[in-house]
Amino acid sequence: MTYVPSQRLLEQLQAGGTWALGRLISRAEAGLAEARPALAEVYRRAGAAHVIGLTGVPGSGKSTLVAKLAAALRERGEKVGIVAIDPSSPYSGGAILGDRIRMTELANDPGIFIRSMATRGATGGMARAALDAVDLLDVAGYRTIILETVGVGQDEVEVAHASDSTVVVSAPGLGDDIQAIKAGVLEIADIHVVSKCDRDDANRTLTDLKQMLTLGTMVGPKRAWAVPVVGVSSYTGQGIDDLLGRIAAHRGAMTGSELGRERRRRVAEFRLQKTAETLLLERFTAGASAFAPALAETLSGRQTDPYAAARQLISKTIRKEYSNELA
Amino acid sequence: MTYVPSQRLLEQLQAGGTWALGRLISRAEAGLAEARPALAEVYRRAGAAHVIGLTGVPGSGKSTLVAKLAAALRERGEKVGIVAIDPSSPYSGGAILGDRIRMTELANDPGIFIRSMATRGATGGMARAALDAVDLLDVAGYRTIILETVGVGQDEVEVAHASDSTVVVSAPGLGDDIQAIKAGVLEIADIHVVSKCDRDDANRTLTDLKQMLTLGTMVGPKRAWAVPVVGVSSYTGQGIDDLLGRIAAHRGAMTGSELGRERRRRVAEFRLQKTAETLLLERFTAGASAFAPALAETLSGRQTDPYAAARQLISKTIRKEYSNELA
Repeated sequence: MTYVPSQRLLEQLQAGGTWALGRLISRAEAGLAEARPALAEVYRRAGAAHVIGLTGVPGSGKSTLVAKLAAALRERGEKVGIVAIDPSSPYSGGAILGDRIRMTELANDPGIFIRSMATRGATGGMARAALDAVDLLDVAGYRTIILETVGVGQDEVEVAHASDSTVVVSAPGLGDDIQAIKAGVLEIADIHVVSKCDRDDANRTLTDLKQMLTLGTMVGPKRAWAVPVVGVSSYTGQGIDDLLGRIAAHRGAMTGSELGRERRRRVAEFRLQKTAETLLLERFTAGASAFAPALAETLSGRQTDPYAAARQLISKTIRKEYSNELA
Repeated sequence: MTYVPSQRLLEQLQAGGTWALGRLISRAEAGLAEARPALAEVYRRAGAAHVIGLTGVPGSGKSTLVAKLAAALRERGEKVGIVAIDPSSPYSGGAILGDRIRMTELANDPGIFIRSMATRGATGGMARAALDAVDLLDVAGYRTIILETVGVGQDEVEVAHASDSTVVVSAPGLGDDIQAIKAGVLEIADIHVVSKCDRDDANRTLTDLKQMLTLGTMVGPKRAWAVPVVGVSSYTGQGIDDLLGRIAAHRGAMTGSELGRERRRRVAEFRLQKTAETLLLERFTAGASAFAPALAETLSGRQTDPYAAARQLISKTIRKEYSNELA
């Protein structure tokens, strides 16, 4: 099979080619240098879609909720893109389909594009790739994009927050350890969802969340957007329309407002940081390979220490990689 | 409370102070610059302990096995240090104790030191901190150190492999998705363990693993160490002594051999890389803060793209941070 240049795929993407879309997402995920000029162009053209970051702890029913939201949006005639980050799949090359099985009913709908991405262990690569994928969907004409991440791990939570509207899903009846994990996730929510509201113990979770928000607003600054708590049941369908209404209201509050501009600036800063880390470490790792084995040998004998050896490695590598640019 | 300098804590550590040990691990975890000279000294003095990296997928019974191993080692009179990396706890400051509850029976034994560490989302910080903690335990006189990580996520797997002997735990009856995750984890094993061997379906897992190893040796180079597969049951105690024997045999095979030197060189190279990434990104992030907001503003308006903006950010920051050193 001949390699189709990314710039060519970009033309096909804009003509509505989902094959080109899938290929370009794969190249973004692989961090291919060849794809970067195309991805750079995609970024400049993107920005029309509304990106919903959706996160929650394992067992909160995120994926089922995403499927319900996507189906409801489809009924309204919208094209929906879904990017799902699955942190339990760092090795399979692609991603694991377990969670996606619930979405088979949607998978045959040409108005929906679903993509699972594996997280990479390394240094902002996952965030960079996921946000490149969002832009690709945007330029391909998907006007609502759901970026789903597991709410475990700083990277995953940050990515869900690198969106226009962040939805955090909580579920009743998860253990205390799960509740503790949630603490850092809860504060990024523009909208709180309590899933599984057909269950008896859901009211307690709703009440707890509302109370927490009240306490939060008492100490925090006055907020231009009051964070709502929405109960949903993917089983009965309860609350799905309400949630879509809240998301639309948040989008309205962000459009053309200082709040919205500030949000997009923050997302751009996050993206800049993650992309810079990727490029910096890529170049550093390549340049360091000339010096690392000898330093590691000395370190292995404990004649030096990791901090001293690392400082040496950094200054040698920076000199090698950047001296021309600094001269 | 007055701040006790890390150098002073190091003296107390060598006099057997577990309070000092706990404080120094916390400072390593927090990445405190003040603690680095002490940690550097600790590294140079360490190297006497045998470090067992133990990993496996969630649900494989790792923590229970660690408790059993620690108890058996204690019966033989050894001091045992345990460092457990819990990736589900990036926000709690400390780590979540859920998995550790099985160890309460051990927690009151002064010959055992257990420390849970949270994973950091960022860039090698977790690996660096975990390996600093291992050295601290080493210098504090713990001669066997178990470094337990969840076998999900590249970082966690790499850390378990940054040890003298790596044990990978599999369990019967986990789903296909879990099996798929395992693929990348399996290849780092010096010793394979199949847990829950009191169960009927354990034999199949044992057979599968042995078959996989046979296929592996047919294509790979001749190995100086034949990877064994050990069945254990934490419930009945079956196989625990066998496992300890295999670990001792692996330690023997590594001691004074080219295989062992090569292993320690590889671990040193990993450690050098992770420490260098930490220091590089620390300095980069600090230096970039002068330029990032303006670049993010331009990026937010989509007048540039993340790759071009990141390249600008890197060259500005490198010039600011390193130009004196390169001049």
